[in-house]
Amino acid sequence: MEHALGVDVGGTKVATALVATDGTVAGGVKERRHGARDRDELVEAIALSVRKARATAPGPVVGVGLACAGTVDRDTGTVVVSPNLPLKDDPLAALVEHEVGLPVVLDNDVNAALTAEARLGAARGVRNGVMITLGTGVGGALLIEGKIHRGAHGCAGEIGHMIVDAHGDPCRCGGKGCLEAYVAAPGFERIGFRTVGLFERGAFTGELIGRLAEEGSAAAMQSLETIGWWLGVGISNVVSLLDPEVVIVGGGLGNLGELLLGPARRVVRRHPLPPARDRVRVEQAELGTAAGAIGAGLVAWEQRGADAG
Amino acid sequence: MEHALGVDVGGTKVATALVATDGTVAGGVKERRHGARDRDELVEAIALSVRKARATAPGPVVGVGLACAGTVDRDTGTVVVSPNLPLKDDPLAALVEHEVGLPVVLDNDVNAALTAEARLGAARGVRNGVMITLGTGVGGALLIEGKIHRGAHGCAGEIGHMIVDAHGDPCRCGGKGCLEAYVAAPGFERIGFRTVGLFERGAFTGELIGRLAEEGSAAAMQSLETIGWWLGVGISNVVSLLDPEVVIVGGGLGNLGELLLGPARRVVRRHPLPPARDRVRVEQAELGTAAGAIGAGLVAWEQRGADAG
Repeated sequence: MEHALGVDVGGTKVATALVATDGTVAGGVKERRHGARDRDELVEAIALSVRKARATAPGPVVGVGLACAGTVDRDTGTVVVSPNLPLKDDPLAALVEHEVGLPVVLDNDVNAALTAEARLGAARGVRNGVMITLGTGVGGALLIEGKIHRGAHGCAGEIGHMIVDAHGDPCRCGGKGCLEAYVAAPGFERIGFRTVGLFERGAFTGELIGRLAEEGSAAAMQSLETIGWWLGVGISNVVSLLDPEVVIVGGGLGNLGELLLGPARRVVRRHPLPPARDRVRVEQAELGTAAGAIGAGLVAWEQRGADAG
Repeated sequence: MEHALGVDVGGTKVATALVATDGTVAGGVKERRHGARDRDELVEAIALSVRKARATAPGPVVGVGLACAGTVDRDTGTVVVSPNLPLKDDPLAALVEHEVGLPVVLDNDVNAALTAEARLGAARGVRNGVMITLGTGVGGALLIEGKIHRGAHGCAGEIGHMIVDAHGDPCRCGGKGCLEAYVAAPGFERIGFRTVGLFERGAFTGELIGRLAEEGSAAAMQSLETIGWWLGVGISNVVSLLDPEVVIVGGGLGNLGELLLGPARRVVRRHPLPPARDRVRVEQAELGTAAGAIGAGLVAWEQRGADAG
């Protein structure tokens, strides 16, 4: 049986998945840590993971899909800029292809995750959907009329840098009031610190807040209410602009699930114009951290189909 | 020579254009005032305009395209809700079809205008573009991979209700800090009043501000700088999410042109992530108020092609 090899390239880990054309994953998603400090070390780490995974494949491997955070040019296989990889305008697909001798296609990691969710997860059967990932930063991807929309320059889906509070909190991009300043890790810390006032600044992580909320801390719940409210503002903007069937929330902090999605939905039901606000679903992602590698495998299959004509 | 009849249905006027399949308009765009207070009077006014226009056609009229402000369901030809027409969940296409005996297709007015700009105006040759119209309210339309994107429920493109200042000025939708609160007529009035302080509240219209700016009024320029800054914030959000090639600004207040677009571009060049912010063009619409009727005619041609194919 043939598989495509999906590879999710992170700053400290490479995850791989052998994905059949129907989306079945052979042997689960495997992770390997790496300590790559430059481009060549990263290419070597990816090539090593590809070889290891290929050795365990139950049949031929037809191609490789790479998923990376950042702006990527899928057509040329280039990582334009990445927040967590030592790459800038580097032709990553060609470099890995040279090492492993298989066709390699490159995509943004959230595009890959949404591809997987649309095939196997929370966006099954959907033609118009949006994915938002909450973690160190905010990622986004758009499914429009059944296709991932990459934009004119590979930059579409930068939901985190939509301005929701033009005179508001600083964002690491240098701007003010970006959604990312409220609903990614630094926002959790800042809002938790402001709301709760019980913690040292910097100690208020998503993990801690989730645990406190589960233990019934009213202050933690109040912080999540505020963060979820901002998430709802961001989702409302996406709904006003795109009118999707579903918005899926994933990423590490997305695991807080209903603690964030409940307050977010209350904003979404009130703000965009009807009927969009009444009909859009706001759901947690289903595939978790495996979505990137599985989606990368699906993207490799798509590319193979396109190449075959 | 065959023509489709494009009809732009406004709250006080009906504009018609006889549009050939190549976009040529026979005899210019004609406007007729109407005083329709309910659905039946409006259908009658539209039917009258259709008959008058048809009588002047140099050959057969193959179909009618209607463009209306508001949320429309193109598939069923229904006006779901409109800010300026006495319609709610009314099957306008079928009602007009019954009166005029021609196939009728219905679309949102900004979708029609962008269709025209993409064929004949400021978005010629563009596959990914966005149109924003500034007037009593803010309208929007999205061209994605060469097609108008209407969304899952016909609501896509509500750029005016993106929240840009979550604790900001009230919007007529009941929300706070919508883009529309800053860059449509009430925002002009409010910002002009705040900035300039010389006028009676309510006297500070787009027309007046444009005239004052042309006469060299520093206060008027300062108001436009502020309004243009907010427009830049809104355009930045659209660019972050969709990464288009061009954003076109039209509508009555869009006629202020560079007085607004200059300040807006300065925000856009700084805010969304590169390379999108460096490459997107921000341009004034080219077809003016004729775009709706001409685009409605093009939509009728599109529909005829789809029905035939």
